[in-house]
Amino acid sequence: MSLLIVGTVAFDSIETPFGKAEKTVGGAATYIALSASAFTRKLGIVSVVGDDFPMTAIDEFHKRGIDTSGLQIERGKKSFYWSGRYHTDMNSRETLITELNVLADFQPVVPQSFRSADFLMLGNLTPAVQQQVMSQMTKRPKLIVMDTMDYWMKSMPRELAETISRVDVLTINDEEARLLSGEYSLVRAAQKIMKMGPKYLIIKKGEHGALLFYDKKVFFAPALPLEEVFDPTGAGDSFAGGFIGYLDKTNDTSFDNMKRAIIFGSAIASFCVEKFGILRLLELSAADLEERVQEFIDLVQFDISLE
Amino acid sequence: MSLLIVGTVAFDSIETPFGKAEKTVGGAATYIALSASAFTRKLGIVSVVGDDFPMTAIDEFHKRGIDTSGLQIERGKKSFYWSGRYHTDMNSRETLITELNVLADFQPVVPQSFRSADFLMLGNLTPAVQQQVMSQMTKRPKLIVMDTMDYWMKSMPRELAETISRVDVLTINDEEARLLSGEYSLVRAAQKIMKMGPKYLIIKKGEHGALLFYDKKVFFAPALPLEEVFDPTGAGDSFAGGFIGYLDKTNDTSFDNMKRAIIFGSAIASFCVEKFGILRLLELSAADLEERVQEFIDLVQFDISLE
Repeated sequence: MSLLIVGTVAFDSIETPFGKAEKTVGGAATYIALSASAFTRKLGIVSVVGDDFPMTAIDEFHKRGIDTSGLQIERGKKSFYWSGRYHTDMNSRETLITELNVLADFQPVVPQSFRSADFLMLGNLTPAVQQQVMSQMTKRPKLIVMDTMDYWMKSMPRELAETISRVDVLTINDEEARLLSGEYSLVRAAQKIMKMGPKYLIIKKGEHGALLFYDKKVFFAPALPLEEVFDPTGAGDSFAGGFIGYLDKTNDTSFDNMKRAIIFGSAIASFCVEKFGILRLLELSAADLEERVQEFIDLVQFDISLE
Repeated sequence: MSLLIVGTVAFDSIETPFGKAEKTVGGAATYIALSASAFTRKLGIVSVVGDDFPMTAIDEFHKRGIDTSGLQIERGKKSFYWSGRYHTDMNSRETLITELNVLADFQPVVPQSFRSADFLMLGNLTPAVQQQVMSQMTKRPKLIVMDTMDYWMKSMPRELAETISRVDVLTINDEEARLLSGEYSLVRAAQKIMKMGPKYLIIKKGEHGALLFYDKKVFFAPALPLEEVFDPTGAGDSFAGGFIGYLDKTNDTSFDNMKRAIIFGSAIASFCVEKFGILRLLELSAADLEERVQEFIDLVQFDISLE
């Protein structure tokens, strides 16, 4: 199988109650690709950076089999930059700086070798850019997963609705699901959103886990209760990366396999938050992952036999 | 087996975005007993009401096998009365009126026939009253479960600590766990609270489910995603009632059986919120319950085999 990921590759400055990280490598596509590479080795990214982006980071991509032929490098320009601060409860954050830089007029180009990718992950970006990527595919991918955010719901609802109507799985958080649907109840919100196009909806609830809706069915995956969340940046993208990476590896998009994929995604996300930025993802071993998935099994499995 | 429940039996006036209920029958012991009676028929309550309390309600207790010989009826006095209003998100509520009435100088008396009960549920009440009940038991119950609230943590921390030190299972919500322990992380909060005495700690997170901590282990039970929460009053008490009722019925206090008990408790709580006050609990059938537990199984069960 093969997996194409589109999204930002960027610099982040992060402040949490535990410390600060200045201009560390981040971006949705970075987290998604690093997480997906724990499962699959035939994956590539479509993104853009400036010539300030470190070769060492690109090297880390290559070491994990991540094809960067779709990563445009703009000379004399700067990479996308985001700076934010988390509050004590880690559930709320404020954006201090957003510098679009190279992202301002990004025209994605999908490399020939990825135009027939089986799995397509549209990381959070302008809905128009997400559509351009879909339009360049020569074959409809087996599964298109899309992430987005409240900003696009407020600023360009029409373009967003158009993009959403073309994907299979939408991943958003609980507040975004409420905003997009106008419904407070997540069950009702899900019913409305699935009528907009996606057959599957994943609602991410941060430390409270994630819900997968499909038809009349719903699956819930908890987040692992952690002693400390060090830095939540990238948790949602790591979750999406683990999810689609696992689906690509197993080449099975059944509901039952999606449940497994969500557990693997949750496991990867639980590592991501243990250190600043992408640090923990870079150290992740297959044994770590397997041990963590066992913790998820122990966390929720029970044995009730109804007569 | 046999189960003794102590807690309030009261009148509630409830206002939610869906409507109002005036002076409806409520109270912790009421919800706990009605929920527990879905599992076990050898149970009794210790509480107090005024002579304004309706005989029809006492009749409902009797129909479900709930022994009321420990329910004191104070002539010429009024029952405990609480009035509250829920906001749109149903997660926050404000207390409008609290009239202690008969509760002001309540001296619990455990009937002879329940002094050697196997299971004891201490519903939310003054820590001193909870202790008096424990002291009247002629035999240490197999399991003592205690509920409490932030009010006692702030107003009488010393008496509360003394009571907590004598119980096996403490059930509180996430904010109360943080308040009691001084730790934001629920994992750390649990470690500290279990050092105060209880071997088991249940942290209730409302619509986000519940966590059961024991030694180094943790189990998570989700709340069922509902289209509508009509009235959250009594959800925590129904959960506790289902939990201890199931334990009494099965007479098994192993960690694995506690997991099952928490799922049954969650199922009962999910019914409780469907109508105002105790209405839905009064209509509950065994078939309803079985169907709902199956929904919980479908909600969280997945099948991953690690090599």
